[in-house]
Amino acid sequence: MEDPCEKAEGRDIVRYDVVVVGSGTGGYPAAVYLAGKGLKVAVVEEHLIGGECTNYGCVPSKAFYQIAEAIRSIGKVGGEASVKWGSLVDWVKSMVKESREGIQGLFESHGVNVLNGKAVLKTPHEIVVEEGSGKAVIEAGKVLLAPGSNPSTVPGVVFDGIGVLSNREALYMQEKPESMLIIGGGVIGVELANAFSSLGISITLVELMDHILPSMDRDIAQALKTHLSSRGVKILEKTSTRSISRIGDRYVAELSNGERLEVDKVLVATGRTPRTSGIGLVENGVQLDRRGFIKINERQETTVPAVYAAGDAVGGPLLAHKAILESISAAKWMAGEEGFRIDYRAIPVTIFTGLEVASIGYSEKELTSIGVKYVKVRIPAYYLSAVKIKGGKQSFIKVLLDERLEKVLGIHVVAPNASEVISAYIPLYLGKLCFREAARTPYPHLTVSESLRDLAEYILGEPVHLLRK
Amino acid sequence: MEDPCEKAEGRDIVRYDVVVVGSGTGGYPAAVYLAGKGLKVAVVEEHLIGGECTNYGCVPSKAFYQIAEAIRSIGKVGGEASVKWGSLVDWVKSMVKESREGIQGLFESHGVNVLNGKAVLKTPHEIVVEEGSGKAVIEAGKVLLAPGSNPSTVPGVVFDGIGVLSNREALYMQEKPESMLIIGGGVIGVELANAFSSLGISITLVELMDHILPSMDRDIAQALKTHLSSRGVKILEKTSTRSISRIGDRYVAELSNGERLEVDKVLVATGRTPRTSGIGLVENGVQLDRRGFIKINERQETTVPAVYAAGDAVGGPLLAHKAILESISAAKWMAGEEGFRIDYRAIPVTIFTGLEVASIGYSEKELTSIGVKYVKVRIPAYYLSAVKIKGGKQSFIKVLLDERLEKVLGIHVVAPNASEVISAYIPLYLGKLCFREAARTPYPHLTVSESLRDLAEYILGEPVHLLRK
Repeated sequence: MEDPCEKAEGRDIVRYDVVVVGSGTGGYPAAVYLAGKGLKVAVVEEHLIGGECTNYGCVPSKAFYQIAEAIRSIGKVGGEASVKWGSLVDWVKSMVKESREGIQGLFESHGVNVLNGKAVLKTPHEIVVEEGSGKAVIEAGKVLLAPGSNPSTVPGVVFDGIGVLSNREALYMQEKPESMLIIGGGVIGVELANAFSSLGISITLVELMDHILPSMDRDIAQALKTHLSSRGVKILEKTSTRSISRIGDRYVAELSNGERLEVDKVLVATGRTPRTSGIGLVENGVQLDRRGFIKINERQETTVPAVYAAGDAVGGPLLAHKAILESISAAKWMAGEEGFRIDYRAIPVTIFTGLEVASIGYSEKELTSIGVKYVKVRIPAYYLSAVKIKGGKQSFIKVLLDERLEKVLGIHVVAPNASEVISAYIPLYLGKLCFREAARTPYPHLTVSESLRDLAEYILGEPVHLLRK
Repeated sequence: MEDPCEKAEGRDIVRYDVVVVGSGTGGYPAAVYLAGKGLKVAVVEEHLIGGECTNYGCVPSKAFYQIAEAIRSIGKVGGEASVKWGSLVDWVKSMVKESREGIQGLFESHGVNVLNGKAVLKTPHEIVVEEGSGKAVIEAGKVLLAPGSNPSTVPGVVFDGIGVLSNREALYMQEKPESMLIIGGGVIGVELANAFSSLGISITLVELMDHILPSMDRDIAQALKTHLSSRGVKILEKTSTRSISRIGDRYVAELSNGERLEVDKVLVATGRTPRTSGIGLVENGVQLDRRGFIKINERQETTVPAVYAAGDAVGGPLLAHKAILESISAAKWMAGEEGFRIDYRAIPVTIFTGLEVASIGYSEKELTSIGVKYVKVRIPAYYLSAVKIKGGKQSFIKVLLDERLEKVLGIHVVAPNASEVISAYIPLYLGKLCFREAARTPYPHLTVSESLRDLAEYILGEPVHLLRK
C-alpha cells in the first residue's frame, strides 16, 4: 500500500490542527467552531458540500413539501393549482444551492479549507485525500469523522439509477412520474409519500412491519395512515416486496400479498447504512459496532485517541439536529473545552407530512418494553382553530407522565406545524417549565402552540378549552 | 325607567351564581371554568357566540391567510393557482362556524346557559337581557364583563356597510373587489393587506404615523414594508385620508399627499373602541378610564364589588390570548381561588403576514422612552434553510438584553412561522431557560425555531451557523 512517491512528497504535507471528514451536519459545525477558535482546519468532502441533509434530505424534501402543502390548501377550498414539474425541480435545486452556498460561506468566513476528495485514514494522524486519480496526504493533529450514511436497500431490489431510486435520485426526477411504489414506511417514506401524492403522483407505500412508522406508537401511525389515505396514498402494511422487474420504461413489483403492481418509479426508503467501510477506519483501530456504526465514548472520541466522530455514522437517531449538536460537542472536546453529553432521548423526531408528527422522549412502546409504568394524557387537537384551518382531524397531543405525575417521560404532537410546536414543548420535557406555569403562559392565539396551555390546564384538572377529563 | 311589569315578574327572576356578559375570548373561558366548578352560570351574548375573534377577527383572517400564502407559494415556483372568491368565503364561513360551534359545545358540556340579547346592568346584581322588543331580568351573584370592542373610525370616514368597511364586513365580502384602500397600518391593516393582495386585490395602505406598525420598532416596520411592497402592496406612510366620497359603485379618497385614489372598497382599520357605553356600567359605578376602558384592579375586579372584567374592554394589548388569560384569572378570583397577575409585557403580539412578526417584552422604542439602557443582539434569519424555503429575505431575530447581559428585555422574531416560533422563545423571556441551555437544546432541523439555538450560540460568542459577531 505504501507509495514511494507519496513518501518523497512527505515534507510538503500540509498539517492541520483538525481535519474533518465530511461537510454535512455532523461535520461543518465542528469545522466552523474550531476554526473560530483559531485552529487550522480542513474539511474533506467527497461529494457535495453540506452532505445528505442539504443535498438529498431535509432541504430538498422540505422544499417539495412546502409546495405540496400549498397545492393541498388550494384544493380544499375548491381552487385549482398547477405547477410545472421542471420549474419545481429547478426551484428545489436553487434552494439546495443556496443552502450549500450558506455552508460554503461559513467555511470561507472562518478560514476553513475545503478539500474535495475521498478521505482515507492512513494513520490516525495522516489522511489521504483521493480525488480522481490524484492523491494528496494531509496531516491532522486531531480528526473528526463525519462520513454520514448511505441509503440501504432490501433483498431483491437493486438501485439502478433510472427507476429504482433512493431519496437521492427521487428528489431530482427530471419528469414527474405518474405512479410510484415506495418501499418503507419510515420517516423518509411517509414524507415523500405525502409530498409526491400532493404533487399528483399516484403512490403505493408498502411497510414490512404491522404499521407504518414502526418505531412509533400505533396511535400515531394510525393517525398518519388515516391522513395519508385521505390524501390518496395507498398504504399496505405487513407487506414486503418480493421482486422488482423492469419492463420497458416501467417496473413490476410482486408484493408479498400476491399483488402485482406496475409503476413508473420505485423509491426504496428502508433505512440507512453508515458510510464507514473503505476509508481506513477498522485498519487504524477505529472500532465499529456490529451494524457498522462508529463506537464513541461520552466525549465523542472513537477507540483511537484524537479521532472523534459525529453524525449519522455514530448511530442513534439519524437526524440533522442530532448531528449538529454532536458536532459542536465533539468540537468542544477537541478544543480542550468541556463538551456536553447529549441526551439522545431528548432529540425530537419530526415528520413533515401535513399532519406533522413531532416526538420527544419515550413512546408507550418503549416504556412498556423497559417495564416503566406511566400515565397517558391524550387530548385531541382539532378543537384548535389553527388546526381546523390548516386541516388535520386526526390531530392529537399525547403526554406520558410517570406514575406520580411529576416527570414528563414523553411528548408526542400529531398536528399541523408540529415540527415548530415541539420546540415550545421541549422545556416541559426538560423540566424547565411546570404545568402550572404553562397554564398561565400566553401562547399566542391562533397557533398550535397554544395547545400547551390547554394541555396544562387539562392535566391540572381545569380545562376550559377541552371537554372535562 | 322602572317598568311595573318587570317588577311584577320579579319573583320569576332566574338567579345565577355568575353572569358573563359576552361570549368572546374574554368571556367564554371564565364561563366554562366556573361552570366546571359547579356554579350556575349564564352567558349573555348580544350577537354571535365567540365574539370578535371567532367571528370577525383571528379565525376568518387566518383562514384567508392560509389560502393567500398557498397562492404565494405556488406563484414563487412559477405555478398557477386560482380560487373562486365565493368558494373561499364559503370555506372561511365554515371555519368560523366550526369554531363557534366548538365554543357552543363547551358551553353545553359544562352546563352554561346561553342567553341571546344585549345585557344591561340594572344593578350590580341584576341584568336586563334585551332581545328584540322583549326584556328579561336575571340575577347574578357575581358578574364578569367581557363586552369587547368595536372598530373605530377616523374623522371624515363613515362606515356605510357597502363599500366603507370595518374588518367585520371586509372578511365576508360577497365579491372580490379589484382594488381596496386600507386606512391604518396596524396589525389588522397589514394582515389584511397581505392576505387580500395575495388573493389578487390591488391594495393601497395608508398610515398616518411615520411608519406602519407604529407601536413597534422601525426596523421591524421596515422589514415588513419591504416584504409587503415586494408582494405588490402600495404603502404610504405619514399619510392620512382627507375625505372619502362615493361615486356610483366606487369610492374616491383624497389623501393628505394630494393623491386622489379611486377604489372599489375602503377598509378602515384604525383601532378599536371599547363597547362599554349604554350597558349600565357608569350608571352603576363601574368606572371607565378616559378612553372608555373598564378600570380593574389586580384581581380583575372593577370599581364595583363582585363585578369583574376581562378582554378588550379592559384595555392593554387587544389580543385573544390576553383575553383568555384574563378571563381565566378573573374566574379564579370569582371562584374564591387565587387568580394570577398577568404580566402584560409578556403577552406576545403576533402578526400573520407571510413574513410574520412576533414580539414579546419591550421594544427599543419603549426602553428608550423609559430611559433603560439595553444591549441589542440582532441576527439575520435568512441563513436558515426553513426561511429560504418559506421565503423572507428580510427575516431577522432581535433580542434586547440588560446591560449586564443577564436579563432578556425583549424578543422580536421577524420570519415565516414567527407566530409559532415565539412560543419556543417565551421561556427565554421568562427566565426559565438560559442561553447556555438553549445552545444545547436540539431544536429540530429544518425549522425556524432552531434559530433559538443559533442565537444562543451567537450571544455566547460561539456561533457556528452565523458569521461571527
